This record gives sequence, structure tokens and C-alpha cells, in this order.
Amino acid sequence: MKLVTYEREGQRRLGVIVADSVVDLPDLAAAAGKTCPQDMLSFIQQSPGALELAKALLTKADLMARSSIPLSQTKLLAPLPQTPKGVIGVGLNYVAHVAESSRTMETQKDVPSHPVIFIKPSTSIVGPEEAIVHDAQLTKMLDWEAELGAVIGRRCRNVSETEAMDYVFGYTCVNDVSARDLRHGGQWCFAKGQDTYAPMGPWIVTADEIADAHDLDISLVLNGVEKQKSNTRHMIFNIPKLIAHLSSGITLEPGDVIATGTPEGVGISRTPPEFMKAGDVVEVVIESVGTLRNHVIAA
Amino acid sequence: MKLVTYEREGQRRLGVIVADSVVDLPDLAAAAGKTCPQDMLSFIQQSPGALELAKALLTKADLMARSSIPLSQTKLLAPLPQTPKGVIGVGLNYVAHVAESSRTMETQKDVPSHPVIFIKPSTSIVGPEEAIVHDAQLTKMLDWEAELGAVIGRRCRNVSETEAMDYVFGYTCVNDVSARDLRHGGQWCFAKGQDTYAPMGPWIVTADEIADAHDLDISLVLNGVEKQKSNTRHMIFNIPKLIAHLSSGITLEPGDVIATGTPEGVGISRTPPEFMKAGDVVEVVIESVGTLRNHVIAA
Repeated sequence: MKLVTYEREGQRRLGVIVADSVVDLPDLAAAAGKTCPQDMLSFIQQSPGALELAKALLTKADLMARSSIPLSQTKLLAPLPQTPKGVIGVGLNYVAHVAESSRTMETQKDVPSHPVIFIKPSTSIVGPEEAIVHDAQLTKMLDWEAELGAVIGRRCRNVSETEAMDYVFGYTCVNDVSARDLRHGGQWCFAKGQDTYAPMGPWIVTADEIADAHDLDISLVLNGVEKQKSNTRHMIFNIPKLIAHLSSGITLEPGDVIATGTPEGVGISRTPPEFMKAGDVVEVVIESVGTLRNHVIAA
Repeated sequence: MKLVTYEREGQRRLGVIVADSVVDLPDLAAAAGKTCPQDMLSFIQQSPGALELAKALLTKADLMARSSIPLSQTKLLAPLPQTPKGVIGVGLNYVAHVAESSRTMETQKDVPSHPVIFIKPSTSIVGPEEAIVHDAQLTKMLDWEAELGAVIGRRCRNVSETEAMDYVFGYTCVNDVSARDLRHGGQWCFAKGQDTYAPMGPWIVTADEIADAHDLDISLVLNGVEKQKSNTRHMIFNIPKLIAHLSSGITLEPGDVIATGTPEGVGISRTPPEFMKAGDVVEVVIESVGTLRNHVIAA
């Protein structure tokens, strides 16, 4: 199931993609005499019950027709405009990216012994087709990072690797936008945490639809040209390892999004270096998940 | 005004300290035929209106008596158990701490050119008298950091230094608990962001009660022995500079807490190094703000 947050008459609504339409879930539930959570975070918090309800509702073709809007006529928003912890980022999680980073960004040469964690606040989240704002006064080095986002489904602490995937609700695309020249004291929060620096979407694909989250092609396309191209199998710490590590110290909550790190091919490590500027169109493309497209505008 | 979040019959309640009592604000408002926000975050979001209402209500001595509970009989909670962004931390913001850190933690020797920002998630927040959990399997280096917390009152972006203090709702004490051996890839999020690593409180003192937030003695006392002793005048980036910097890229929201950095005297930089262990009692003491006391327990 591809779950979306979309805008209807100025309101955030919860829907599901069926063919080339968005089916409004609360409307569909109401038509069937049921009630459904009104927004994505509540839906995740109330799953698997809410998910089972949605599956049952999606068998009712007659009611669905009345609750549908063509996708082309809707504005999709970030599937989770606010999460409990913003976006939990993982740095240096692909070997080839560790190498290119150490060459161009003074990060460590060695493959990390533990996941490298940082947080982007919820104020940095934008949805598909929304603008990434480039403030040329602040940064000359606005860069991209295509990442698979894993959405946590249930509150958890001290989860073992073997059980970790049970806590994943679904997946989305994240662009971990990074102003390379705004890393201060080595910390990434300000460089990666600015408004519009966490494009997310276009939807959340539920975990049951992804046979193997660690065998997905992932790429980043800038103005039609492929800049990053890898596969999630190359993660240093796979999703079970990330969840086990994080939850050893930090309670994970429904709706937490873990951006699992980017492969090689970021702008600063290219020869010559390339960065994003106003007018650019940037796409994160992940097999079986979707394409997250954004454009860059000047501040 | 000293605003508290406290527990009554298993519920979080909003109150204000009057002498040695907690006056329940929603109860007091109801007794006066008014309505008041039910929790601290709503109160801040609805201020200055809510603050003005509270001030007016606190002149009604007869009604106050009926809405009061002795402080000794209440359990105070973290004034903001959840904030929009967790706790926004500032590293290396006191010159003498920059020096001791570079000597013992491989951080930079030079005074930072820009604030060094990181985020601790809301799951790390605990209140006064609550436990800091020491997981000896995870860390051998559980350290303290006494910090003044500035609470943002109004949503803002691109605030100038001259206007910045208008956006401060009040102040609280924060202990930026840090597991020194859990910094990975240079990032501080996992080392500082674990559950119970952000004690906060015991209350929020409204900004009007602090004549000069940059002339407050600040200290940390471990088991009755003073370990840190400084004054907020020694911040490298004062609160207006922090707000101007942060808001140049990141929208600040009501209820955001900026932990403004710690002075010298942290455990890892002492000779010999000292760390917290189960049974310890740790206090952050800030002049005109209050004392935040916590104890350490084993996981």
C-alpha cells in the first residue's frame, strides 16, 4: 500500500494510491460506516489495526470510486510533515561514500565501527514537488544525498537485530540536503537541518510490499543526469543493525524516520565539485519505493 | 513567574509556583470563570495572552488558595516533556570548556567561528528528581554538563540579534548528559541523545523575571561537591547570537529549548577524569533560575 498525505481544500488528508488516483481513507471509511485515523502519524500509531482496516476498505470498489481523486489533480505533501524526532540521519553508511567523503570533507577514512547518527528537525521536512530553498548568502555548497527512509511503526527500546524489521512500518525516499560549508565544530545539524533540507516522499510504501529493503536500486538524478547510482545492499549498517543500535539507547517511536545514509556520488566529491542552484530539479529514485522530485529556488 | 508541569492523579498538569505551593493554572482559571491552556506547550504557544491571563489570575488570593497544593506534596515533571525539536544543544560555547575539551576530547582548539549545533530528541528529556539511567554496558564515561536553557516563545525565522530576546519566553536548567565514549564519526547525537540524557527543570522562569540572562552564576554539584562554576557572561555566542544564527536557517517554534552550552569542569577533563555512576546525585544550579536535581541509577 502506498500511503500519502495530500492537500484538499487547504487541509492535510490521509490517502492511499490506487492506480492513478488518491483514495481518501477517512472518507472511504466513513462511506463504509467505519472510522479511520485522520492523519499519517495517527494511522501509524494505530497500526496494524488501522492498516488492516485500510486493506479491508480497499476491497470495496464501489465506495472507493466515490472517495477518489485523480493523482494528477492532487497536491501530495510530505507523508509525515512532523515526526517525533524529525529525521534521524545516518552518516557514512556506504563504503564508497566513506571514501569520497574522507577525500573531500575531512571525515574519517575508516569504515565506521558504529552508526554515525544526527538529527534533522521536523522544520526541515518538505514534500514532493516542494521547493528546496537555496540561500546563497549562507551556503555556496548545497548538495544532495539520496537515501532510503525507514519509518518506524511501533514504540521500541533494546530491539535485537533479528526482531528489528518487525518494527518497520514502511519506506520512503529522503533527500538529505546538506550545505557542505555550514558544518561547524564537525557537527552536521546546522548544515543538514535547515528549513526545506529534508524532502521526503512521495509516499510511504508499507513494509509488506518490499520483498527485500536491502536489494533496492537507489539513484539521484539532477536535471535529468544521474549523479548517484547504487543499491541498498551496500549499506555498512543495514536497517536491523541501525534499529538495534539506536534503540539500545534511544526509544524509537511510531513515525520516527531513519534516513539510512547515502551512497557515493554526492556533489562535493565530484571532479569538479557540483552543487545545487536555483532552477535545478533533483530526484531521488528508489526501486519499488518511488521517485521524490523537488526543485531548487533562491531564498 | 515560575511555571511548572506537575503530576496530579497520573495526569500532567500546568501550574505556577507561589511561595511553597503549586497553584494549578487551569483550575484557577476555571474558578475565575476563565479558560487557560492545559499544558505548558499550549501555554507558550498562546502567550503573551496566556501569560497575561495567568498574571491577572494570580492576583486573586481567595481563588488561589483553593487551587493550591504544597510543593512538597507534588511531583514536578520536566516543564516541557516534549518540545518541537527536542533540545537544541550548543557545543563549545564557553572558552575554558573549548580548551579543556580540545585537551581531552579531540575537539577543535580554536574558539568556534559559528555556534556548534546538535539535537537531543524529546525522548531524552526527564524532569527534576527523575533518574538518569547509566547503562554500564554502553558507556564507561557518563558525564555532566550544566547549561542554561532558553525557551523560545514565538515562531521565528531570520531574527536579528537586536530583536532576538523578544522571542525568549523564559529560562530553565538543563543537564546535557553526555556519554563521552559514544561519540561516533565525530557526531554527538547518540552520545548526548539517549533516554534520560536531557534532565530539564525544575520550572520555566519567565523572561521578565531575569534581569540579565548573561550575568547568572551557573554551577554543577555532584554529591554535594561543586564541579563546575562559572557565569553565563562567559558564553562565546550569547543568546541573541544563538537565536540569530539558528533562525538564519531553521524556523524556531514556541517551546523549542536551546541549551546554551556548558562551562569548564566536565568530568572527562578533570584530573583524574570522573564520571557519573549509579547512586550519584547531580545538581545544576543557576542563579535566579533554580536547582535541577537528578539521581543516577543503573540500567
